[in-house]
Amino acid sequence: MVTVGIIGAGRIGKVHTTSICTRVKDAKIKTIADPFMNEDTAAWAKSMGVENTTKDYKEILNDPEIDAVLICSSTNTHSPISVEAIQAVKHVFCEKPIDHDVEKIKNVIKALEENKVKYQVGFNRRFDHNFEAVRNAVQGGKIGDPHIIRVTSRDPEPPSAEYVKVSGGIFLDMTIHDFDMVRYLAGCDAEEVYVEAAVLVDPAIGEAGDVDTAVITLKMANGAIAVIDNSRKAAYGYDQRAEVFGSKGMVATTNDTLSSAVISTEAGVTGEKPLYFFLERYMDSFAKEMNCFIEAIEKDTDTPLGVMDGLKPVLMGLAAKKSLQEHRPVKISEIEM
Amino acid sequence: MVTVGIIGAGRIGKVHTTSICTRVKDAKIKTIADPFMNEDTAAWAKSMGVENTTKDYKEILNDPEIDAVLICSSTNTHSPISVEAIQAVKHVFCEKPIDHDVEKIKNVIKALEENKVKYQVGFNRRFDHNFEAVRNAVQGGKIGDPHIIRVTSRDPEPPSAEYVKVSGGIFLDMTIHDFDMVRYLAGCDAEEVYVEAAVLVDPAIGEAGDVDTAVITLKMANGAIAVIDNSRKAAYGYDQRAEVFGSKGMVATTNDTLSSAVISTEAGVTGEKPLYFFLERYMDSFAKEMNCFIEAIEKDTDTPLGVMDGLKPVLMGLAAKKSLQEHRPVKISEIEM
Amino acid sequence: MVTVGIIGAGRIGKVHTTSICTRVKDAKIKTIADPFMNEDTAAWAKSMGVENTTKDYKEILNDPEIDAVLICSSTNTHSPISVEAIQAVKHVFCEKPIDHDVEKIKNVIKALEENKVKYQVGFNRRFDHNFEAVRNAVQGGKIGDPHIIRVTSRDPEPPSAEYVKVSGGIFLDMTIHDFDMVRYLAGCDAEEVYVEAAVLVDPAIGEAGDVDTAVITLKMANGAIAVIDNSRKAAYGYDQRAEVFGSKGMVATTNDTLSSAVISTEAGVTGEKPLYFFLERYMDSFAKEMNCFIEAIEKDTDTPLGVMDGLKPVLMGLAAKKSLQEHRPVKISEIEM
Amino acid sequence: MVTVGIIGAGRIGKVHTTSICTRVKDAKIKTIADPFMNEDTAAWAKSMGVENTTKDYKEILNDPEIDAVLICSSTNTHSPISVEAIQAVKHVFCEKPIDHDVEKIKNVIKALEENKVKYQVGFNRRFDHNFEAVRNAVQGGKIGDPHIIRVTSRDPEPPSAEYVKVSGGIFLDMTIHDFDMVRYLAGCDAEEVYVEAAVLVDPAIGEAGDVDTAVITLKMANGAIAVIDNSRKAAYGYDQRAEVFGSKGMVATTNDTLSSAVISTEAGVTGEKPLYFFLERYMDSFAKEMNCFIEAIEKDTDTPLGVMDGLKPVLMGLAAKKSLQEHRPVKISEIEM
Repeated sequence: MVTVGIIGAGRIGKVHTTSICTRVKDAKIKTIADPFMNEDTAAWAKSMGVENTTKDYKEILNDPEIDAVLICSSTNTHSPISVEAIQAVKHVFCEKPIDHDVEKIKNVIKALEENKVKYQVGFNRRFDHNFEAVRNAVQGGKIGDPHIIRVTSRDPEPPSAEYVKVSGGIFLDMTIHDFDMVRYLAGCDAEEVYVEAAVLVDPAIGEAGDVDTAVITLKMANGAIAVIDNSRKAAYGYDQRAEVFGSKGMVATTNDTLSSAVISTEAGVTGEKPLYFFLERYMDSFAKEMNCFIEAIEKDTDTPLGVMDGLKPVLMGLAAKKSLQEHRPVKISEIEM
Repeated sequence: MVTVGIIGAGRIGKVHTTSICTRVKDAKIKTIADPFMNEDTAAWAKSMGVENTTKDYKEILNDPEIDAVLICSSTNTHSPISVEAIQAVKHVFCEKPIDHDVEKIKNVIKALEENKVKYQVGFNRRFDHNFEAVRNAVQGGKIGDPHIIRVTSRDPEPPSAEYVKVSGGIFLDMTIHDFDMVRYLAGCDAEEVYVEAAVLVDPAIGEAGDVDTAVITLKMANGAIAVIDNSRKAAYGYDQRAEVFGSKGMVATTNDTLSSAVISTEAGVTGEKPLYFFLERYMDSFAKEMNCFIEAIEKDTDTPLGVMDGLKPVLMGLAAKKSLQEHRPVKISEIEM
Repeated sequence: MVTVGIIGAGRIGKVHTTSICTRVKDAKIKTIADPFMNEDTAAWAKSMGVENTTKDYKEILNDPEIDAVLICSSTNTHSPISVEAIQAVKHVFCEKPIDHDVEKIKNVIKALEENKVKYQVGFNRRFDHNFEAVRNAVQGGKIGDPHIIRVTSRDPEPPSAEYVKVSGGIFLDMTIHDFDMVRYLAGCDAEEVYVEAAVLVDPAIGEAGDVDTAVITLKMANGAIAVIDNSRKAAYGYDQRAEVFGSKGMVATTNDTLSSAVISTEAGVTGEKPLYFFLERYMDSFAKEMNCFIEAIEKDTDTPLGVMDGLKPVLMGLAAKKSLQEHRPVKISEIEM
Repeated sequence: MVTVGIIGAGRIGKVHTTSICTRVKDAKIKTIADPFMNEDTAAWAKSMGVENTTKDYKEILNDPEIDAVLICSSTNTHSPISVEAIQAVKHVFCEKPIDHDVEKIKNVIKALEENKVKYQVGFNRRFDHNFEAVRNAVQGGKIGDPHIIRVTSRDPEPPSAEYVKVSGGIFLDMTIHDFDMVRYLAGCDAEEVYVEAAVLVDPAIGEAGDVDTAVITLKMANGAIAVIDNSRKAAYGYDQRAEVFGSKGMVATTNDTLSSAVISTEAGVTGEKPLYFFLERYMDSFAKEMNCFIEAIEKDTDTPLGVMDGLKPVLMGLAAKKSLQEHRPVKISEIEM
């Protein structure tokens, strides 16, 4: 039984708390920390069976009974708390992205070299039933060598311009999931990225210095070409699809819906829209990634997504940013140096 | 908070235990009873957070702290324990069917007339996302007045001949779910039933006095015609579909699959088979029916599936049996009398 | 090169004329006869490259240059003209049904015994790409032994009450195609039929002595159970589907649409309705049946649909009628005697 | 009635001959010319009802009875014969591409300025039922302003290295159809193109100086971003899909198949592969483009695809070639100058 402390009781912190309490057999939560901890959140924690709540995450790091820490706090705290937790010899599950700053991620890497703990990054989509099926088909040789990888990732609603300003930009905030997905499906790293992008959804996003619509082409190390298309707003809901085309065929997924019901009337043949919200769409994947993290601790194996898997999509995001600014293909190695 | 006792720790008892422990907020299980209670089951109960286990279900009925009872024991005990539990003024959730004997169900009805408790029957498929969507379309007037209702219900594997002998026959054992579904989708009762059936899957089923393949036609009170097709063995898995055709259109569902991945190769374009096992297919519906039962207790409202909803499909099943024996359409009222 | 005469220049006569002129290589039409032949029809015939038109079909029967005759006249003339044409030693393609009267069909059978000519009945749906694919899967053993055969056949618009009165009733007018389809897909004859039917679409159809909604169950000679569901009005268009379930699996078809385009908006995910009109839906099948007829003449082989294939669905239709009247299952052999 | 001469009796010349003879009402073919005209081809022409055949296309240009000319000869002759035919005051339907050399296309433009004749280019895919439905949805405002346009275009088999050498390269030979499609679906011109490409299918194609796998990103004049993905070999057949995503939703198509039959067995749920060959997939579109050409002549309206629609995809193809060579985004205006 792994004893867990959770740092950050916002939306994603609550998701992981619920997963561990109801769907992870071998873990229990001892403490939840949040700088804004209040009576409501403490009551909610209690209702989930978690007795301790605190405003100070250091209580968790200093608690010798706690084996593992989930970092669900704001993005800018991910890397420093990761370093602290690793140095306190806690296993760490860190939400994505580790940091927007490569140097700070390198601090985490260094800390991991000095302390023998597990580290997992929260790219939950790898644990989604559809994307897993695509990956399995590719890994199982069903489609031969991958030639073209397509990832469609469109949000149902754009973020506020306020959020956009602090988000690090679409590539580090939204596409970062797709960069991870491309690596996962291709089974290798990207070497070069080219971005074509525009402000088509909301001019306020452009005024905040970002884009809201993008097509990103990537040259992968195994020779395959990947293409991601992103929009901040799909009128029909959350659009999350992938397709891998290879020498022997193709594997493709569609979106999940609430039901398979199709209504045929004089007006047409109409099915349900994709699940609208990422929590609906990916709830099972959150539980699955948590089970994998706990299992890696118990069996003392590698986590499925280590710190390098956290670093690589950030490099891809920074290269994409540079490609957009300089309007040219940018090698990932230009960022790494 | 509703305190629950569970009678029967077999497969379905465990399903409900898990649902209540992980997915029903306002209920907790105090005791699990099973005549074959052993160390393993007791350990499993403990791992789910249930402290008390016993071989004697009367401990549950006599426990004043227990508000509600789940009857998950063998079919022949459903009605007598229902009566006992009702007389002990416990709310009752009873697995289907209440009984194969109409008189015994009438005993339950009588007990309910004399004691003000909630009673719910476990036709879980009503709580399935697909069938709910069909029902909602019909109820919402999307397809107009129902004219033709089709239910396809095919199991992945036939039962053993041993089981068949004590099962009450396909109509009371398997089709009973479909009889309930037809009532649910039509929004009314059946008036007459005609059966065409055969032994095509396994001769041993025929030797045990039953059939394994059937097409059942029903005349509904609202004028619609319903047709159920059953097989004890679908090579491709558990086939569970419904279609309602009406004056303004049609609503239809397909099966659920593990993922939406489709692989296209020289050999064809292949998607996944339907979920194979009823526990995979209907897990969410079991949690949902339990939440509805607990909610009916807490809010003091009718349960969604009362004792009459338990009786009606049994009448339909008995009429189907008679239709098969006498090779003619049989009115439900012939059984009721 | 087969020289053809066409008797009847109504809708279906024009369909076959167009097929032969544009899509049948080895046939040419010499003469079109119609009792109501007028200038417009003659001009249309000329535009199709057919020089001769006449009011008298006997001109065709007496023309020694004409090898084959297509009988596209009104239903009541099908069998007498068949007999005349056969006796004139012409190959005959006869639209369905040959007759509503079994005795008159027997006259055709007798004429065929006395004259060595080809005879084909116009059950065009056998030549449809979807139904052919189902049949091929069954014949190819892909689904094992057939257990359950389902045919859905719903028209987009009900006929007028006037038409209904002279139509012979839904079973001889509409279901007759489905009776043929069931024989085609099962690969054997039906032995017994049971009908559950109602007037749900248009009370005028009921007043005309017919039904407009029906579920017909059939026991097939190979043990399979077939079920046909019919409606005279599907709001969403012409619904033509089949499914065969067997010991090794299932083969099923959906409807054809004008395009595969699917539009996803806030309102839902909407595809096109089925093709509305039988001429759109089945145009290719009309050309294909004509090619098969011509080929059977040229190669001196059996036609794919002989006179017995014309008789059997009529027997099934008459048995269905009797089943509805007497509210009981009726054996086909009761009609044959 | 438009009298037509056909120049070139190869595969596509035969397709158009068949279309006109069987599916175009208001046109007839007088003469077919081909430098390799032989007895077989002449016999085939006769069987189609075409009396005159010749080795010399000038017979067609000099025949005052001929109103319109179809140029189906080898690519390098398209533009010079176009100029000759226009100067002979014939209406011209010219197969794609008009030429690989922009200057030669300008000669055609100049000839058209001096002679009042119709000119249509053979981008037949615009007349395909699926792509028309996508275009109609976009034009009808169903998906709002287009933001992202995706065209998937993958051939079933790669061409020989010999052909590749004279083909003008993948962008002028294969992608040229997709460049036209992007313009058609966006309703505007492209402004810039970026190519990511590789040799993944056949090294011989690389040795012949070409690529066989490509992802092409385009910036459109209306702000939308288009992305084309090409492969010279899709193991599962001819993959031809399009998707347009916009401010109000998305419209997408799938591939056409021979039938809708789906077989479910223990091995999976398998449907048919896409139609394998372009003639199967696009046969109807060839007939439709021909009808549009004849109608434009008869009604004296613009053809749906004028000479500028022939020029633009060539400019896009040349820009794509330059992008690949120089590994940078290339503006279309760089080619035009």
